[in-house]
Amino acid sequence: MTLRIALDAMGGELGPDEMVAGAIQAVEESDLNVVLIGDENILNRVLQKQSLPPSRLHVIHASQTVSMDEPPFEAIRKKKDSSIVKAFACVKKGEADAVVSAGNSGATLASAIRSLGRLENISRPGIANAFPTLKKPLVMMDVGANVDCRPQHLFQFGVMGAAFSDNLFRIKRPSIGLLSIGEEGGKGNVLVKSAHELFRKSSLNFIGNVEGRDIFQGNVDVIVCDGFVGNVCLKVSEGLAEAIISMLRIEMSKSFMAKMGYLLAKKAFGNFGKRVDYAEYGGAPLLGINGTGIVCHGRSNAKAIKNAIKVAAEMIRSKVNYHILQLLSESDQRSAQTEPKETAAVIGPGEDA
Amino acid sequence: MTLRIALDAMGGELGPDEMVAGAIQAVEESDLNVVLIGDENILNRVLQKQSLPPSRLHVIHASQTVSMDEPPFEAIRKKKDSSIVKAFACVKKGEADAVVSAGNSGATLASAIRSLGRLENISRPGIANAFPTLKKPLVMMDVGANVDCRPQHLFQFGVMGAAFSDNLFRIKRPSIGLLSIGEEGGKGNVLVKSAHELFRKSSLNFIGNVEGRDIFQGNVDVIVCDGFVGNVCLKVSEGLAEAIISMLRIEMSKSFMAKMGYLLAKKAFGNFGKRVDYAEYGGAPLLGINGTGIVCHGRSNAKAIKNAIKVAAEMIRSKVNYHILQLLSESDQRSAQTEPKETAAVIGPGEDA
Repeated sequence: MTLRIALDAMGGELGPDEMVAGAIQAVEESDLNVVLIGDENILNRVLQKQSLPPSRLHVIHASQTVSMDEPPFEAIRKKKDSSIVKAFACVKKGEADAVVSAGNSGATLASAIRSLGRLENISRPGIANAFPTLKKPLVMMDVGANVDCRPQHLFQFGVMGAAFSDNLFRIKRPSIGLLSIGEEGGKGNVLVKSAHELFRKSSLNFIGNVEGRDIFQGNVDVIVCDGFVGNVCLKVSEGLAEAIISMLRIEMSKSFMAKMGYLLAKKAFGNFGKRVDYAEYGGAPLLGINGTGIVCHGRSNAKAIKNAIKVAAEMIRSKVNYHILQLLSESDQRSAQTEPKETAAVIGPGEDA
Repeated sequence: MTLRIALDAMGGELGPDEMVAGAIQAVEESDLNVVLIGDENILNRVLQKQSLPPSRLHVIHASQTVSMDEPPFEAIRKKKDSSIVKAFACVKKGEADAVVSAGNSGATLASAIRSLGRLENISRPGIANAFPTLKKPLVMMDVGANVDCRPQHLFQFGVMGAAFSDNLFRIKRPSIGLLSIGEEGGKGNVLVKSAHELFRKSSLNFIGNVEGRDIFQGNVDVIVCDGFVGNVCLKVSEGLAEAIISMLRIEMSKSFMAKMGYLLAKKAFGNFGKRVDYAEYGGAPLLGINGTGIVCHGRSNAKAIKNAIKVAAEMIRSKVNYHILQLLSESDQRSAQTEPKETAAVIGPGEDA
C-alpha cells in the first residue's frame, strides 16, 4: 500500500516554497504520496512555479495558520481550519497516514493528542529527538512537551525512546541513560532519583545516570529527561555550535595565513557541517500518540522536510507504536510491583552538590 | 593589607605539582600570599623541585583528602583533617582570607557553609560560573549546588549573580535573564513561572526569560536557573565543544589540502581555544556564604589556579558580599510584599509545549 504523508505546508520559517520543495523531493525519491495542507491559492501558485509537479502530490485547503508563538491549546481550539489541525483531521478520516510539520511544535502535539488520542497506558506523549554524535545516532526524550514530570513519565519516555531507536536505527536492546548531574544513582534531583529506581528495577537495558557531556560521545542510545531540561539541552547545543563556528570564522579571517588555511580547509568545514546538520535527521518524532507525527525545526529546509517525510513512512512501516506497547507491557510487568510511591519534585536537603 | 588565599593543594585531577605551580605564578604576578593546605611531605617535596619558592608561600599540613566522588556532607563530617575542611578552618581562625579549591565542589561548598555560615537572609548559597561568550562574560547561577529549588531561591541567585557581575566585570545594573524554554513569561515549568513573577515585580534589571541559545550570544549579563539545569548546561557545553573540535580535526585530516589548511590555520585554532578556555576565567565563585571561596574545574591547570586566586582576592577587595546584602535588601523591599505563595515544582497541565 502506498503511504500518504500529510505535510503542514504553512509551517516553518522558510515558508510554503521550501515545504513544497521538500515534498517534491520526497515523492521523487520514494513511492510515497504527499498531501499538502494549507492555503490552496498559495500552494497552487507555488506548485505552478515548479516544473512538472509529480502526480503523487495533492493539496487540501486550510484557511488558517497557527503561528510559532501562539499558546498551543488555545490556538488549536480557536483555529479549527488551520493547516496543523486539518492535517491530523486527515489522518483521523483515513485520508493520510502520518503528519509532518515544521510549525508550532506544541500545537502539533496538542492536535495529535486531540485528534488521535494517546497510546494505551501512555500517560504523556512527548517529543523525541535524534542527535548526531561522534558514533551512532542518539534518541533523547522528552525535548519540550512535558515541562513538569513525574518519575513514571520519565520511565515511559525511556520505553518510547528505546522502541524508536530499535525500529529506526536497528539498535537491538538500546541502552538507556537517565540525564543527571553525576553518574552515581544517588545524584540528581528528587524527580531523577525516583525515576532511577523505576528504571533500575525494570527489564530495560538501563545503564544508569549519564551526564550532559555523554550526549555527543555516542556511548548511549537513548537519553531520558523531562521536557524542560531536554529543551534547554537542545537550545544550548544549537547556540554553542553556532557560537563556535562564528568564533572560528572570526579567528580565521584575522591573518593572511589563517585565511589561506580556511580556504584550503573549506571542504572539511562543509563535511563537518553535514555531520552536525539536523536536516540530515529529518525532525523529531512525536511518541506516545495513537498515530504518527513528526515535528521539524522551524528553520527546516527542503532537505529536512524530505527526510522527515521519509522517517514518518519508516515509523509506520516498522510499526514503532506496536513496539512501544509491547516494550511497555514487558517492562511494566517487572517494574509495576516495585514502583516506589510517586514523589513530586520537592525541595531536597541541598546535599547533592 | 596583604591578602592571604588558602589553596586546597590536594584538590584537582592534575595533582599537587600543578596546584603549587599555580600558587607560585599567583604570588609572582601579585602582592598576594598563598597558604598551601595539604600533606606537608608532598608539598615540601614539590616546593623543593621549584627554583626559589617565593617567601609569600606557606604550607599548612592536612593529613586527609576528600576525593571527587565522595558524598560531600559525609566526607566533611568524617574527614576533619582534610585539606578542604582545614582550608575553611584557616579562614575561620583568621589565618587566611579566602579559599580556592579544584577538588570536590560539593564538599567545598559544604565546608564553606559549615565553617563560615550563610550571608544574612540568603536561603541557599550556590555556585556561580562565568562563561565566555561572543561579547562580554556571562554569570550563570546556580550551576550545581541546589538541584531542587523554590522560586525564592532562584530570585536570590539572580541577586547574587548581579552583585558579582557588577563588582568583578564592572557591569552597572547587570541585566538578568531567567533560563526557560520560551521567551514569553508564561513559558516554562511551574518553578520558572513563579520565579518570573518575583523578578518581574522586583527593582532588578530583569529582562525576562532567556533560552539556551542566549548563553553564548553575550546579550545578557546574568542567567538564573536551578542547580540541576545549570549543571546540565555546563556539561552539555563542555561535551559539545570537545565533540566539535574532534569532528573538525577528523575532517581536516582527511585530505592533503585540508591538512595543509589546518596547518596554516593552526594559530587561529589556538586563539579560538583561548577564547573558550575556562582557565582564562579562574573558576566558579561560591556565592551566599559568609566569606569568600572559589571552586575550580577538576582539570584545572596552573594558569586556572593562578587566575582563581586573583579572582578570590578581587572578590574580597571589591566587597562582593557587602554588595549582595545591599542589593538583596533593596530588591526585597519591592518584591517582598508582592511575592506569590511559594509553590514546589509539581505537575503542570502539560500545556507548555
